[in-house]
Amino acid sequence: MRTQVAIIGAGPSGLLLSQLLYRAGIDCVVLEHRSPDYVLSRIRAGVLEQGLTGMLEEAGVADRMHREGLPHDGFTIAVGETRLRIDLKDLTGGKTVMVYGQTEVTKDLMDAHASRDAKIIYQADDVIPHDFDGNSPKVTYLKDGQRHEILCDFICGCDGYHGISRKSVPEGALTEYEKVYPFGWLGILSYAKPVDHELIYANHDTGFALASMRSHTLSRYYIQVPTGTDVNAWSDEMIWDELKIRLGAEAAERMETGPSIEKSIAPLRSYVAEPLRFGRLMLAGDAGHIVPPTGAKGLNLAASDIHYLSGALIEHYAEKSDAGIDHYSQRALARIWKAERFSWWMTTLLHQFPELGAFNARIQQADMDYLASSRAAQVSLAENYVGLPY
Amino acid sequence: MRTQVAIIGAGPSGLLLSQLLYRAGIDCVVLEHRSPDYVLSRIRAGVLEQGLTGMLEEAGVADRMHREGLPHDGFTIAVGETRLRIDLKDLTGGKTVMVYGQTEVTKDLMDAHASRDAKIIYQADDVIPHDFDGNSPKVTYLKDGQRHEILCDFICGCDGYHGISRKSVPEGALTEYEKVYPFGWLGILSYAKPVDHELIYANHDTGFALASMRSHTLSRYYIQVPTGTDVNAWSDEMIWDELKIRLGAEAAERMETGPSIEKSIAPLRSYVAEPLRFGRLMLAGDAGHIVPPTGAKGLNLAASDIHYLSGALIEHYAEKSDAGIDHYSQRALARIWKAERFSWWMTTLLHQFPELGAFNARIQQADMDYLASSRAAQVSLAENYVGLPY
Repeated sequence: MRTQVAIIGAGPSGLLLSQLLYRAGIDCVVLEHRSPDYVLSRIRAGVLEQGLTGMLEEAGVADRMHREGLPHDGFTIAVGETRLRIDLKDLTGGKTVMVYGQTEVTKDLMDAHASRDAKIIYQADDVIPHDFDGNSPKVTYLKDGQRHEILCDFICGCDGYHGISRKSVPEGALTEYEKVYPFGWLGILSYAKPVDHELIYANHDTGFALASMRSHTLSRYYIQVPTGTDVNAWSDEMIWDELKIRLGAEAAERMETGPSIEKSIAPLRSYVAEPLRFGRLMLAGDAGHIVPPTGAKGLNLAASDIHYLSGALIEHYAEKSDAGIDHYSQRALARIWKAERFSWWMTTLLHQFPELGAFNARIQQADMDYLASSRAAQVSLAENYVGLPY
Repeated sequence: MRTQVAIIGAGPSGLLLSQLLYRAGIDCVVLEHRSPDYVLSRIRAGVLEQGLTGMLEEAGVADRMHREGLPHDGFTIAVGETRLRIDLKDLTGGKTVMVYGQTEVTKDLMDAHASRDAKIIYQADDVIPHDFDGNSPKVTYLKDGQRHEILCDFICGCDGYHGISRKSVPEGALTEYEKVYPFGWLGILSYAKPVDHELIYANHDTGFALASMRSHTLSRYYIQVPTGTDVNAWSDEMIWDELKIRLGAEAAERMETGPSIEKSIAPLRSYVAEPLRFGRLMLAGDAGHIVPPTGAKGLNLAASDIHYLSGALIEHYAEKSDAGIDHYSQRALARIWKAERFSWWMTTLLHQFPELGAFNARIQQADMDYLASSRAAQVSLAENYVGLPY
């Protein structure tokens, strides 16, 4: 088989890239190790920047999002019983975010691919990118016991942190930067009315909490737990009780609870691989970088990679120019590091770090007091939260 | 002897307080362990916020500052050969800073005290504050071999980090917060024309540097050196050579050099004691807190303490209200912690921290890139640099 662009990974990054290239008349094949059901079963956050919603419109997959998504004008930071509302719309001159689950984005992209009978090969085993340092790369894979080969011009690695794409890069060609936080987020998904129409980020003496939602009837809550915590040690009731403490008395009074339909612990980590291009192999999304979930930058950052990458590939085919390809890594990384900085800062602001000592705890409190007292500080937070320009 | 307010320490904090109280008709005695010459020989930074210059005007000691001081509308941050000018005046809606040495401020205050024959007792040994937990505190001291006693209503500890005031607080009454940085500033003072009419803060791969000045002919430069560095290991020539590297090629070309007239290493430290009031003893300035010199907040923070403290004492005598006294510690500390946060952040942004690893170095670079690209981030920096409101 021959295609122009082989995309490894059928998560939101890979599918968004495939859809944007399709609309520009570029032929793609998407290879995915898992089944469609497995891909859709991955629960992830869903706070979309306008940059991403604009790309979904451009890709022709934004209708349901506009029908069912929840535009948010702001959010609240709670420290003990004090409240600070961040009015995103006012602070950014009109920008907002869209609450719409990553799973829903993926589903909309899957549907768009299905409706045009696009080439997505699910349950492709032993996917291997080859010869991307030359002009004739290819990808091989096993399917139904047979080895297949896709000849292509470019390989795009959209297969996440554990994917084969980054692992295929020759030793020494890649520099990795990492910070591991000593805690994770214990998340609970439940059919309960959200405690607020906007998100509440709470920093309480006992730890961080986030009140979030997928819809008007489906709530998503998180609490900070130490690394190594066993999810089974936390009953639903214990989680609700802890949320009521961390989110404060006023929220506790309003909070509706219910049985969990999903419960899991995600570790918090910052990670960046440099560069993101190796000849004709380009990495995008989690394949190249991870942010802690505070600030909800993971999917949005994948989207900004796809913005630069799709633009570069379209430029290559339409204008016979490789400028975009040559600059892809540098452009993507400039924005990635700013988002890494913001995610690190927001994580630092809102979690408990007893191991860092009393001075750091006071600096954190001063950071919050300054934020509450300064419009410039709030504008800075807001412009990062809604997404810095591409 | 009896007075209303006994002030321990005749540095700028103690003298400014004494002068403001004098103008409000309140009787003070100032006790100083050292000689006037020794006090004046201490070289310190001199970037004054408008809050402080306003207080010097109020105290009637601002004439020479307005004649000889250098108003600065901005400063430059240099990273390698790139330059980012922070236009303080534009970013803060008209605010600026005044470059005028702390030594000069102290001298002007000394002159004002001398002209009215104010009660400053220099070379007072073994100063001890007593009974400040009751209503009749007193201060004892040795002078010319004799023990003396000053009965008073209040004792103000303006005697710096090593002074007796904070050390007199009963064990357990005080909580201390501290961060020690693994480097110091090697400073050189020289009669050479400043390399720029504004300050240049540089973060170079080999470390931080600051190009500063006391006047149009007197330059003050600093370079980051590891803790434990011997000042004698650095000849003047070595310092000039290193400055030319760290400040960049363009500055190096313009830089005038000359023999040092002062050369010393100051460690970098963040420190806060809480609370700042113990009955009728109040701490102000370095007696209660230390900032690293990045951002020049030390003297300005002492001045804001004196703002709250002089206001509280004047309120006590004029309005028979202790509200200001009761709130002194809380009000002063709220502003102190914001300045501690800013000084810590600016130190973190501009120094080399190899021990913190590659991820932190990239976050630092992203912080700088974000600052260069965001007006909100620049406004935030500028409003802190010119001084947050009292």
